[in-house]
Amino acid sequence: MRLTQSLCRAIQVRPEGLATIDGERRRSWREVGDRVARLAAGLQALGVAPGDRVAVLAHNCDRFFEAYFAILWAGAAIVPLNTRLGGRELVEQITDSGAGTLFFGREFSATVADLQRDLASPPRCIGLDDDGAPANGTLEALIAAHEPAIEVARGGDELAGIFYTSGTSGQAKGVMLSHDNLAAMAVNLVMCIQLDEGCINLHCAPMFHLGDIGTFMVTMVAGTHVFVRQLDAAKILGLVASERITHVFTVPAMIDRLAKHPSARSTDISSLRVLGYGGAPMPMGTYEAARAAFPGVDFIQGFGMTEMPSHTFLGPRHHRVGADMEKMKSAGQASYGFEIMVIGPDGRELPRREVGEIVGRGDNVMSGYWNRPGETASVLRDGWLHTGDVGFMDEEGFVYITDRKKDMIITGAENVYSLEVENVVSRHPSVDECAVIGVPDEYWGERVHAIVVPKAGARLDFSELDAFCRREIAAYKCPKSLELRSERLPRSAAGKVLKRELRTRYWQGRERAV
Amino acid sequence: MRLTQSLCRAIQVRPEGLATIDGERRRSWREVGDRVARLAAGLQALGVAPGDRVAVLAHNCDRFFEAYFAILWAGAAIVPLNTRLGGRELVEQITDSGAGTLFFGREFSATVADLQRDLASPPRCIGLDDDGAPANGTLEALIAAHEPAIEVARGGDELAGIFYTSGTSGQAKGVMLSHDNLAAMAVNLVMCIQLDEGCINLHCAPMFHLGDIGTFMVTMVAGTHVFVRQLDAAKILGLVASERITHVFTVPAMIDRLAKHPSARSTDISSLRVLGYGGAPMPMGTYEAARAAFPGVDFIQGFGMTEMPSHTFLGPRHHRVGADMEKMKSAGQASYGFEIMVIGPDGRELPRREVGEIVGRGDNVMSGYWNRPGETASVLRDGWLHTGDVGFMDEEGFVYITDRKKDMIITGAENVYSLEVENVVSRHPSVDECAVIGVPDEYWGERVHAIVVPKAGARLDFSELDAFCRREIAAYKCPKSLELRSERLPRSAAGKVLKRELRTRYWQGRERAV
Repeated sequence: MRLTQSLCRAIQVRPEGLATIDGERRRSWREVGDRVARLAAGLQALGVAPGDRVAVLAHNCDRFFEAYFAILWAGAAIVPLNTRLGGRELVEQITDSGAGTLFFGREFSATVADLQRDLASPPRCIGLDDDGAPANGTLEALIAAHEPAIEVARGGDELAGIFYTSGTSGQAKGVMLSHDNLAAMAVNLVMCIQLDEGCINLHCAPMFHLGDIGTFMVTMVAGTHVFVRQLDAAKILGLVASERITHVFTVPAMIDRLAKHPSARSTDISSLRVLGYGGAPMPMGTYEAARAAFPGVDFIQGFGMTEMPSHTFLGPRHHRVGADMEKMKSAGQASYGFEIMVIGPDGRELPRREVGEIVGRGDNVMSGYWNRPGETASVLRDGWLHTGDVGFMDEEGFVYITDRKKDMIITGAENVYSLEVENVVSRHPSVDECAVIGVPDEYWGERVHAIVVPKAGARLDFSELDAFCRREIAAYKCPKSLELRSERLPRSAAGKVLKRELRTRYWQGRERAV
Repeated sequence: MRLTQSLCRAIQVRPEGLATIDGERRRSWREVGDRVARLAAGLQALGVAPGDRVAVLAHNCDRFFEAYFAILWAGAAIVPLNTRLGGRELVEQITDSGAGTLFFGREFSATVADLQRDLASPPRCIGLDDDGAPANGTLEALIAAHEPAIEVARGGDELAGIFYTSGTSGQAKGVMLSHDNLAAMAVNLVMCIQLDEGCINLHCAPMFHLGDIGTFMVTMVAGTHVFVRQLDAAKILGLVASERITHVFTVPAMIDRLAKHPSARSTDISSLRVLGYGGAPMPMGTYEAARAAFPGVDFIQGFGMTEMPSHTFLGPRHHRVGADMEKMKSAGQASYGFEIMVIGPDGRELPRREVGEIVGRGDNVMSGYWNRPGETASVLRDGWLHTGDVGFMDEEGFVYITDRKKDMIITGAENVYSLEVENVVSRHPSVDECAVIGVPDEYWGERVHAIVVPKAGARLDFSELDAFCRREIAAYKCPKSLELRSERLPRSAAGKVLKRELRTRYWQGRERAV
């Protein structure tokens, strides 16, 4: 399959139907299709060839969506950049991916100016917005200047995008997803959520992240995309009412904010059919608040990772009153046609309820890491992706995640590798020893927490450490709390810090240790 | 994707859920999975190797389903044979496919004995039933004698089945469908019909035909399969009530019989959610009767062909009261992710509402005809399947079929090529000239109709022609009506019979000529 096939179909079957809504701007599928084809021609005129990588650095907006499909229409691959990254990280990812072109939103004009200074061979930088000091022209200018391009028919196993995810080594790895990978994700979501063209979906997670599942899924059914730049509870509730939103997919923390927002009860949410969430099971308190605030709405959980998006699914019936609430602690069952298994150290499947590593297989599993055959081989064996998540499966195939093999923290749906943060913290002149772990947090799911043994006589406080870290890494990776210790950190015989022991006191009384 | 992936998932997520119901016999997914794996081992022990073809000649039953998946589990390809074929046609298809093994139902014992006599190297013949003179053992004996086999992981573009369809030349052609082709079909049906594991589907079309869409689609969602041997209206209505059937897919003629059956109004059809049909638009009279007899049930139409199954879809909302009833005359819109186009003689897309040939593209399009590269190349060009159907598209992508390029009759959802029937009729000693055309028929959609100019002084009546034809070809291909003419048939300057002219008087006052 080609991802653009679903766009072609949408143009054919719902030409006058609303494709995108962004504030006052509303466009039909016919208009969006025309703009995508013209923008693709513009990219080709700039020299973008099939197989080239084109990066995007922007908040959610309709033009991000148009750029996404124009890149594919031109036969290129998209590299969506995390808007929360620091300059050093952006330089790394643009360099690593070899992106020669970059679309950017107006909020990133200063960042782009820095990039053009810091990169040896900076990409062409095209403004998604008309204002904000466009560097090498704007999206609108490209659209205006070109006739629609004939679609470049790349698809199947060919590269559709490179999605960066933090690496254990501290360096981000580019996850290569093919057209078939992303189409398998989209098709699976349509099946599990039972979407149709009546869906009006709010892009309520950042579009650079596959946690925003809407881009391909909604296009597949020729539904309507609604975009919002700031993920603000009041704004989201207002859009649900004014745009008659039917589907919202987000993280439990945002559902908590929506449910507890003062205006939740007075908002007209009669259009809302599905509230989906991912990244973590929903805390019971949040769930009860949400069920009370949004009566009649179906809840859905999905679990996956960039390497294997939307792999499992926990449907509405497991969220309903009277359902076995134990299942809500799971990440759901394998999505249609995908496989999941819990294996022991010998690689063989374990009996139900025995704890081991979770592995998955399916058309959604990545082709590999960009230019990292060694790391690819270490996680992708015989078609099975080794997730590094540890857990068990019950008698009906529900998967419960209990721990993590990799030293990683998932905070606000972002992966943070402890090692990367430890590398920064340990460089602070007052730090003797340090460990960075995830601790439970009602808002973030897990919070990045630093445990530091200061050098003899040295002093360190949170705000100083925070300022130090923010100069080096993205804010979301920086420790949000600091614990100072005078005794040495517990270590194994081999000298490795015993993270599990450090985590124990924070996770006591909980069924999960992540 | 491997088609067996959906079976593996069903075993995992609904092990104790009902997989198959056939009369008194009820089996869970765990049982069916175990039986399939053992039967696959039995096939391997008999010498069936990956890539081999295994034929099936049987009416609908649970063991047909088990054989279907066991063949795939062993890495082989299925060749489902049309139960209405005559001995000569079966010999042709078994020989052409090279099937070395044949599963057969008890009703075909005599046929199988004939095949073993007529074939130069007859296949191993395995009885699906315990009785009925099993030739080389039975399915149950194979299951009992073997431990479960490890699944042979064939999938993707590899051959999953060869499905024979009548050829213009009069010889059946084997349509090669890969795992990905059939998976794309199944996934698409799940999306369009919004199926989930609560579905209890009655296999109400013959399982050898892809018109019985249930085999992969229901397995994909781990629903429940119900089988019925005789497609009898009273029996079907009884099963809907007793097994709480939710989904029935059949042809308009059967919906007509169901709706008008004396017991329809007294049957408990409260479980029924979807009545689907394919092969032809539904006559308004049938539709009105069905809507009255089955209130609250959603109607769905699918259109496709063996070479490109389940390609378009007309959903429930286009069938509801108040909908634009014009759309019901269409074959629907392209299914999700598939493409359809109407082209002119130059191969370029025509403007909306202009009449041309209908072509389709998608992951459901066959790999080609088995051992017929020339015929493959004539219909499959740049990934587009040239259907031979003629029609137009409206402004919302609904496709209306108005005529057929190929000289073919679709009767009771079976394709009959005029040439094949004409070859037989013309061999009758009393026949001077003949033409075989499709004429409108309330029950069959189209009826095979023979127009014959007898030899001077010769006599011919319908029953004699019928008996003559039935000795040569399957009953469904034999003319169901005969018209004798004394004048010569109208011919073109090149001497070709003008079929269109012959058809005109039968199709007058209709919007379609097929």
